[in-house]
Amino acid sequence: MSPVATTTDKETAALDAALVIDSSPFLKAIVQQIRANDPYGTYRNWADETLLKPYIIPKKKRREISVEGDVDPITMGRILAFYRAIAARIEEETGQLSQVVVDLSHEGFGWALIFSGRLILVSKTLRDAQRFGFDSLEKLAAEGEKLVQKGIELAERFPAVCNI
Amino acid sequence: MSPVATTTDKETAALDAALVIDSSPFLKAIVQQIRANDPYGTYRNWADETLLKPYIIPKKKRREISVEGDVDPITMGRILAFYRAIAARIEEETGQLSQVVVDLSHEGFGWALIFSGRLILVSKTLRDAQRFGFDSLEKLAAEGEKLVQKGIELAERFPAVCNI
Repeated sequence: MSPVATTTDKETAALDAALVIDSSPFLKAIVQQIRANDPYGTYRNWADETLLKPYIIPKKKRREISVEGDVDPITMGRILAFYRAIAARIEEETGQLSQVVVDLSHEGFGWALIFSGRLILVSKTLRDAQRFGFDSLEKLAAEGEKLVQKGIELAERFPAVCNI
Repeated sequence: MSPVATTTDKETAALDAALVIDSSPFLKAIVQQIRANDPYGTYRNWADETLLKPYIIPKKKRREISVEGDVDPITMGRILAFYRAIAARIEEETGQLSQVVVDLSHEGFGWALIFSGRLILVSKTLRDAQRFGFDSLEKLAAEGEKLVQKGIELAERFPAVCNI
């Protein structure tokens, strides 16, 4: 076999990841959030899958992360980008402007809220937020899309509360 | 004049304060919040007006408080007790359980939200939260009662959103 035709496992994984990202508007929205918060252009030449990699932490590794003390700023940034991406997707689909509030006052315990006017579109209690992560890109995409869909349903069900 | 009949200015002020507190269910609710967060009984023998005193900061003094850096825990506790008292009052009047979220991530800037189910009963943007305070007990009471009333109105207007 000529070397041109072979692909390493790593290359195959990268191609797979690129396909998953390409088919998920939610994953693309996270990437957009990360790139929007990159004032020095650090990530300019990074592939999308590289930007999303920190979200993927196998269950066993997650359990090894200490939940003592506050959530570090990098994890906090990851949580914020996740919820801001959901907000951006809901906004895209419904036209409703929304806000994201993440309140992690008690050592990894707290709330993530996305709201529009007086309506809460997404409401999640967070626990052990230091361990925020997903088993795979597919699971990250599925969880995000699920929250986006629920948010859209609520916005469509109670437009008057959004527009207060 | 016999010494029994005289009252000092300080005593008169304390009596006035006691009357204001007595006529305000909201001020009583703040006092209750403060006493509920007193595991060592530090405030057991303190008068209600002494507990509320830190909320009263004349405008001039407020302006002198630095807004550099994060909000200190004592001020944060004061802000939380204020919003939790509003939540408790709304709960009392409507029977709707509600949650308080205060997100002060950006150096004294952020949100205070009170919500029940998917309905936001109180929504305030906070700025210069380091300076959280009121000109007088009466103004503290009036601001609290105003937010309580608006919250009750919303809860009555959109019960279906509260009960999601």
